Amino acid sequence: MYNITTIAGDGIGKEVINAGIAILDHLDLNINYIEAEAGLETFEKTGTTIPEETVKSAKKSDATLFGAITSVAGEKSPILRLRKSLDLYCNLRPVKSFNGTKSIKPNIDFLIIRENTEGLYCQVESLYENEAIAQRQITRKASERISKFGFEIAKKYNKKSVSCIHKANVLKLTDGLFKESFYKIAKNYPDINANDYYVDAMAMFLVTKPKEFDVIVTTNLFGDILSDEAAGLVGGLGLLPSGNIGDKNGLFEPVHGSAPDIAGKNISNPVATILSIAMMLDFLKEEYVANKIQIAVENVLKHGKIQTPDLGGTNKTNEMTTEIIKELDNL
Amino acid sequence: MYNITTIAGDGIGKEVINAGIAILDHLDLNINYIEAEAGLETFEKTGTTIPEETVKSAKKSDATLFGAITSVAGEKSPILRLRKSLDLYCNLRPVKSFNGTKSIKPNIDFLIIRENTEGLYCQVESLYENEAIAQRQITRKASERISKFGFEIAKKYNKKSVSCIHKANVLKLTDGLFKESFYKIAKNYPDINANDYYVDAMAMFLVTKPKEFDVIVTTNLFGDILSDEAAGLVGGLGLLPSGNIGDKNGLFEPVHGSAPDIAGKNISNPVATILSIAMMLDFLKEEYVANKIQIAVENVLKHGKIQTPDLGGTNKTNEMTTEIIKELDNL
Ligand SMILES: CC(C)[C@H](C(=O)O)[C@@H](O)C(=O)O
Ligand SMILES: CC(C)[C@H](C(=O)O)[C@@H](O)C(=O)O
Repeated sequence: MYNITTIAGDGIGKEVINAGIAILDHLDLNINYIEAEAGLETFEKTGTTIPEETVKSAKKSDATLFGAITSVAGEKSPILRLRKSLDLYCNLRPVKSFNGTKSIKPNIDFLIIRENTEGLYCQVESLYENEAIAQRQITRKASERISKFGFEIAKKYNKKSVSCIHKANVLKLTDGLFKESFYKIAKNYPDINANDYYVDAMAMFLVTKPKEFDVIVTTNLFGDILSDEAAGLVGGLGLLPSGNIGDKNGLFEPVHGSAPDIAGKNISNPVATILSIAMMLDFLKEEYVANKIQIAVENVLKHGKIQTPDLGGTNKTNEMTTEIIKELDNL
Repeated sequence: MYNITTIAGDGIGKEVINAGIAILDHLDLNINYIEAEAGLETFEKTGTTIPEETVKSAKKSDATLFGAITSVAGEKSPILRLRKSLDLYCNLRPVKSFNGTKSIKPNIDFLIIRENTEGLYCQVESLYENEAIAQRQITRKASERISKFGFEIAKKYNKKSVSCIHKANVLKLTDGLFKESFYKIAKNYPDINANDYYVDAMAMFLVTKPKEFDVIVTTNLFGDILSDEAAGLVGGLGLLPSGNIGDKNGLFEPVHGSAPDIAGKNISNPVATILSIAMMLDFLKEEYVANKIQIAVENVLKHGKIQTPDLGGTNKTNEMTTEIIKELDNL
C-alpha cells in the first residue's frame, strides 16, 4: 500500500487533482490518500499558507501529489517550503513534443534537471533604504548531487549527453563552483558526453536547436526560466509534468499554476497532472503502470479527438480524463 | 564632427566592424575614428583584456562602436568593464522579425530594455571551502532610471505598453524594489499601459505570444537571457543590434559574440553591426540617416537576393555589405 498525500491547492488545482485521482483509482494500485491543505483558501481560513501538518504528512508519505496554488503576497510560498523542508533537491522537468499538439518543432525530447534547494531561492535578502541585496548560494554538495542525478538519469534512459547550464563568465565563483562540480561528477560517466553552455545561449538554442539536447542540468532560477520557455516550445504549460525529488521524498506537480481565471469551469487540461502521476509511479517503482499512463496520454493527444481549449479544442477536463481512462483500458 | 571610438575586438569582431565602417564611410557624415583595443589578442599582447586608454577613449568620444570579444577565463570582461565605467545603464535591444528571414512568428516587434549596471552583474562574490555566494544588488536609483528610460522610449515610439519583468514572488525584496520603482515611474505616464510578469512566464510568452509586447523593462541577467531567447525567435543573433546607453555615453554592439569558429572566413552576417550603427546614429540625433540604414537593411533582407550562411544563403560578409550600400543609394 502507498500513502499518498494530496495537496489540491486552489484555482484549477482541485479539478486537475480530481482528474489525476480518477486515473489512479482506475488502476490496480492500493493507495491510501491523505488530503492536506495549502494555498490561498487555506490562508484565508487559517492565517497560514501551509500548515505544519501538511509538511508533516508529505514527509511521512510515500509520495505527494500537488495541484496548484495561488500565491499570497507577503506570505511564504507553500511549494518552496515543501521543496526545502523535504530536501527535494531535484526538480525534474521532462520536455516532450507530443504528436497532435502544436509544438514549435517536432521530436523535441529532453529533460531539464533543476537544482531545487538553493541559488537565488535561498531567500536571504536584505532591504536598506534605497537598495536591496539578495544572496545567491551555490554549494559543492548540492551542485554535485544534482549533477549526479543528471548523469544517473541519462544512464537510466540511455541518453547521450548531459549539458550544464550556467553563467560562469559573469558569476565566476558561484557558477564556477557549479561547473567545476558538474565536470567532477562527469568523470564517473565516461560514456556520456558532458558539455556546458551559458544560460543566455541556451535560451536561444532551446528555440533554434532543441533537438540537440538530452539532459540539461542547471541551477534553480535558470531551471525555472528555461523550463517555462521549453513549455512554450512544446505547446504550453497544460502538458508539462514535474517531479520534485529527494533522497527520501518525492512531490509531483504540473508545471502550470492555479490559473484562477479559468478555475471551476471544467476546462483546464488535466494532462500535466496525469503525466506527473506517471512520474510519481515511476518514482514508486511502478514502472509498468507509469509507462502505460504515458502511452495512453500520448495516444489521446495524437488522435486529437478530445482536446481541451488550450490544445485548440472545446472539450472539458472530465472528457479528457475519461478519454485517457478509455485508452488505458485499450492498452 | 563626431569622434567615434571603434573597438573591433577579435573573432568576427574585426570583419563586422569593417563592414560597419564601410557603411558609415559611404554616408555623408564627418566622422573621426579612434581605434582602440580590447579582447583576447590584446590580452596576449599586453596582459590585460582592456587597457586603460580604451576606457578613456570611449569616455571622451561621442559614441563607441564595439565588435565582439573572445572572453579570457579568469580575466575581467571588457564589455562589462565599459558598461560599468561609462555608466551605460541601459542596454537597449530591439527585437524585430524581418520579412525574408526565418522568424518563428511574423510581425514581432518589441524592445527589451535591460538594466545594465547591477543585479547579479555587480560581481560581488565570495568563495568559501564548499560554497560560494554571489550578491544580487538592486537599487532604487537604477530601477527608477531604467523604468524611466523604458517609458520615455515607449512615448517616443508611440508604444502602447511597458512590461516589467521580475521574479518578485521569490526575490521579494530585490525584485519587490524593482517592481515598486517601476510602478512609481509608471504614474508619470498615464497614457501608457504598465504591467508586469514573472520572468519564467515571460520566457514562455515570448514564444507563445510575442506580439503582445511592446517594451520590456527588466533587470540585468533576466534581460541577458530574454534577449538571447528573443534572438532565437527572430532568426538568430546575426540580426540583433544593441545599444548600451548612459546619460553621457553610448556604446553600440551586435548582440552576437566573436564566433571564433567562423572568424576570418568572410561569412559572418554584418547586419547586427550595421543595425547597431543605425542605433548609434539615432543616439547622435542623426535620425534621418539612421532610419535610412534601417530601411536599406530591411529591403535587402526582404529581397533575399544576398544572404549570408546564417540566413540560409552562401554569400560573403562583403557582398551583404555592398548590397546594403547599393540599397542605400537607391533610397
Ligand atoms: C511558484 C514559484 C515559486 C515556482 C518557482 O519559481 O519555482 C514556479 O514558478 C515553479 O517553477 O515551480
Ligand atoms: C559577454 C557577456 C558578459 C555579456 C553579458 O552577459 O552581458 C553578453 O552575454 C551580452 O549579452 O552582452
